[in-house]
Amino acid sequence: MHQELQEIVYEANMALKRNGLITLTWGNVSMVDSKREVMAIKPSGVAYESLRPSDIVVLDLQTREQVKGSLKPSSDAPTHLYLYDHLPEVGAVVHTHSRWATIFAQSGKAIPAFGTTHADTFYGPVPCTRPLNRQEIEDHYEMNTGKVIVETVDRSDPLAIPAILIEGHGPFTWGKDARDAVEHAIILEEVAMMAYHTLILKENDRPIDQHLLDKHYLRKHGKNAYYGQ
Amino acid sequence: MHQELQEIVYEANMALKRNGLITLTWGNVSMVDSKREVMAIKPSGVAYESLRPSDIVVLDLQTREQVKGSLKPSSDAPTHLYLYDHLPEVGAVVHTHSRWATIFAQSGKAIPAFGTTHADTFYGPVPCTRPLNRQEIEDHYEMNTGKVIVETVDRSDPLAIPAILIEGHGPFTWGKDARDAVEHAIILEEVAMMAYHTLILKENDRPIDQHLLDKHYLRKHGKNAYYGQ
Amino acid sequence: MHQELQEIVYEANMALKRNGLITLTWGNVSMVDSKREVMAIKPSGVAYESLRPSDIVVLDLQTREQVKGSLKPSSDAPTHLYLYDHLPEVGAVVHTHSRWATIFAQSGKAIPAFGTTHADTFYGPVPCTRPLNRQEIEDHYEMNTGKVIVETVDRSDPLAIPAILIEGHGPFTWGKDARDAVEHAIILEEVAMMAYHTLILKENDRPIDQHLLDKHYLRKHGKNAYYGQ
Amino acid sequence: MHQELQEIVYEANMALKRNGLITLTWGNVSMVDSKREVMAIKPSGVAYESLRPSDIVVLDLQTREQVKGSLKPSSDAPTHLYLYDHLPEVGAVVHTHSRWATIFAQSGKAIPAFGTTHADTFYGPVPCTRPLNRQEIEDHYEMNTGKVIVETVDRSDPLAIPAILIEGHGPFTWGKDARDAVEHAIILEEVAMMAYHTLILKENDRPIDQHLLDKHYLRKHGKNAYYGQ
Repeated sequence: MHQELQEIVYEANMALKRNGLITLTWGNVSMVDSKREVMAIKPSGVAYESLRPSDIVVLDLQTREQVKGSLKPSSDAPTHLYLYDHLPEVGAVVHTHSRWATIFAQSGKAIPAFGTTHADTFYGPVPCTRPLNRQEIEDHYEMNTGKVIVETVDRSDPLAIPAILIEGHGPFTWGKDARDAVEHAIILEEVAMMAYHTLILKENDRPIDQHLLDKHYLRKHGKNAYYGQ
Repeated sequence: MHQELQEIVYEANMALKRNGLITLTWGNVSMVDSKREVMAIKPSGVAYESLRPSDIVVLDLQTREQVKGSLKPSSDAPTHLYLYDHLPEVGAVVHTHSRWATIFAQSGKAIPAFGTTHADTFYGPVPCTRPLNRQEIEDHYEMNTGKVIVETVDRSDPLAIPAILIEGHGPFTWGKDARDAVEHAIILEEVAMMAYHTLILKENDRPIDQHLLDKHYLRKHGKNAYYGQ
Repeated sequence: MHQELQEIVYEANMALKRNGLITLTWGNVSMVDSKREVMAIKPSGVAYESLRPSDIVVLDLQTREQVKGSLKPSSDAPTHLYLYDHLPEVGAVVHTHSRWATIFAQSGKAIPAFGTTHADTFYGPVPCTRPLNRQEIEDHYEMNTGKVIVETVDRSDPLAIPAILIEGHGPFTWGKDARDAVEHAIILEEVAMMAYHTLILKENDRPIDQHLLDKHYLRKHGKNAYYGQ
Repeated sequence: MHQELQEIVYEANMALKRNGLITLTWGNVSMVDSKREVMAIKPSGVAYESLRPSDIVVLDLQTREQVKGSLKPSSDAPTHLYLYDHLPEVGAVVHTHSRWATIFAQSGKAIPAFGTTHADTFYGPVPCTRPLNRQEIEDHYEMNTGKVIVETVDRSDPLAIPAILIEGHGPFTWGKDARDAVEHAIILEEVAMMAYHTLILKENDRPIDQHLLDKHYLRKHGKNAYYGQ
């Protein structure tokens, strides 16, 4: 039971590594089953080269009990769990320290929507959270990281901008499934790299026109979508 | 019929990927046959790993009908078709979101001719189009992208500067055939990367002397060409 | 005898190369045995492709005599020896000219603790030494490089910030064993790359809050550590 | 006859490509025999994948006649020949358009000696030539490129700083043999990348102290050399 979910989550973790988003063991992917009863997540501190599908840890979303896997879940599990509890549209979550997204997070700045590459996936700037305060850091830090994400997403549709930067830390992305969330992590890094250099070359931070943002986002998403390269 | 054209276009699309110009499925190559009766182009949304020569879609240039391939053509097909209609010297077209060329496009800036690497291929700065207006974006957006390219090329020889940047979007390159157009996409990215850093290091945007530009371009192109490294 | 130590040091040197931290032969790893009687270090000027475990040179820490290996030890050996003499917590030492750490060293600047990626490993900024003076450079230069490292570490715990930048030169890292020291070299390079770009994007050099630094360092290190991604 | 020289030159050209210094066919290596009777050089416009040792062209240094190989020599051959005629210490020459060295060349700036990585190979800043004037570009351009290199090297020892930047163009390096000249091209690119970012981070262009430059250069070169990592 849950073996298919473990294999999907295993494959998604390996895809992050293969796409150059991971240094050492810094990153994790989780996904919930279709009934939202369990979450599968990478175990803590295992090298990618020795990771196997059966190492993926499965936790019950209600009881938080570990129902499969003998290793400890990633220490970031409380962040993932908080997101599944509060964002019902989200089926999978990715955390990395990918270089360019982390540079924006360390600078405490949102990634502006500078071009259609951004607009194809993110329907507006990718926001950066406020800093956590001392209390939030000292107690339940990982869960509070989830809280500040949900606070920043606010009431907007999390799938319209499926990424966020944690101030001083790095990015989280998500999606309807693990493949989707990993794709968003790849795109976020690409978009962040280009936004950094656009900021310098352009000498201002004016985003693209709203009608261009609308066109690119809406031709790929929603009921009138028709686009594929 | 058209099988050789499909194989050339397939190979050119794979060459873009191999040369690191493509993230996910972001890019496409098309080419017309020597009689300019049909255009072959990458299908929409197919992963490069599973793309096969027979997946390449063939469209009739006159009727716009699909004469070969069961998949949908790339959504950028109307841009490619417009270029073939209006630029008779052009035999193949490439579109990518390659990083450094896209950074210039997102900044709305032309790539200055800063050195002989540029002059060997582009006989002057690589221009950036004006932004499309709201109307042009809302209706027939992909065809209007072709229009603004042709408007920017104006009456000059498109093969003298076989590349352009779409404001807020990314680059298109072209050539007499697919191999040529792909080579221009590789060179554009290299030249854009070096121009970006030259702009910062040089602290001004003065291009190379006209006689150096002439020498490098003309020793490789036209009837007195003699150069090869 | 010492064959296992040679194999560990061989493997650590190859790991530096594999992780992209080494150009040509620029770098070396050493490690002492558990009794701190001998140091094993890369030989001088051998290409990584032809390096074998038996090429690793073993030196007696007391007498400085070569007890194993027919090649000359790395010319940086006096720096490594000085560190083992004065920093009893250190079991292995790495020297590289990795790009981003060297850029900070060449600028004579410490690497600020800009984010949690830094805080997970380095409990504060990674310092840069003062320049060596003419006398220190002319006589016993390599040993004096060790001296200025120890002077900069001062009385603090060398394992709390297991890295340093030599002004005008490049980084040294260390750890309890060779695997640890190599991991610190990989992390230092990653952290330096992101700090460089954060400095530019952030437009100030304010580090992360002390409570965030504490949280990230202390959840991975010391007696209350619980973290693993 | 000259088969060994062809193999050495073939191998050196392939090493440039393997080390990431070459885009498309942009680069060439030449070398003279020990009697300085002939020069072997890469042929013009051959893709690296299909280059074979027997394709390497051999020219007589006195008569300039082609004594071996059926292909045309690289169009840069007159530059190489001029260097062998006027710099008797030089046994091999390399030309590339490697990214960071070309960025300095396009900016018309020398590469300052910012660190010991530079000082280990280049005994002072790597100079940039003056621009060629219109006359020098229009007639015998490639030979005049050699002339401006020799003019810039002036009476100093070309092996003490075995590299130069051609204004608006790119780098040449040289050495006692092809392996040496290729190694200098690799080091030049590494040093240029780090110098570019050091210039920005350091906020001034003060080089390292002369005694540190002396120490690093002289511990690796000349009669008192003792260094190897």
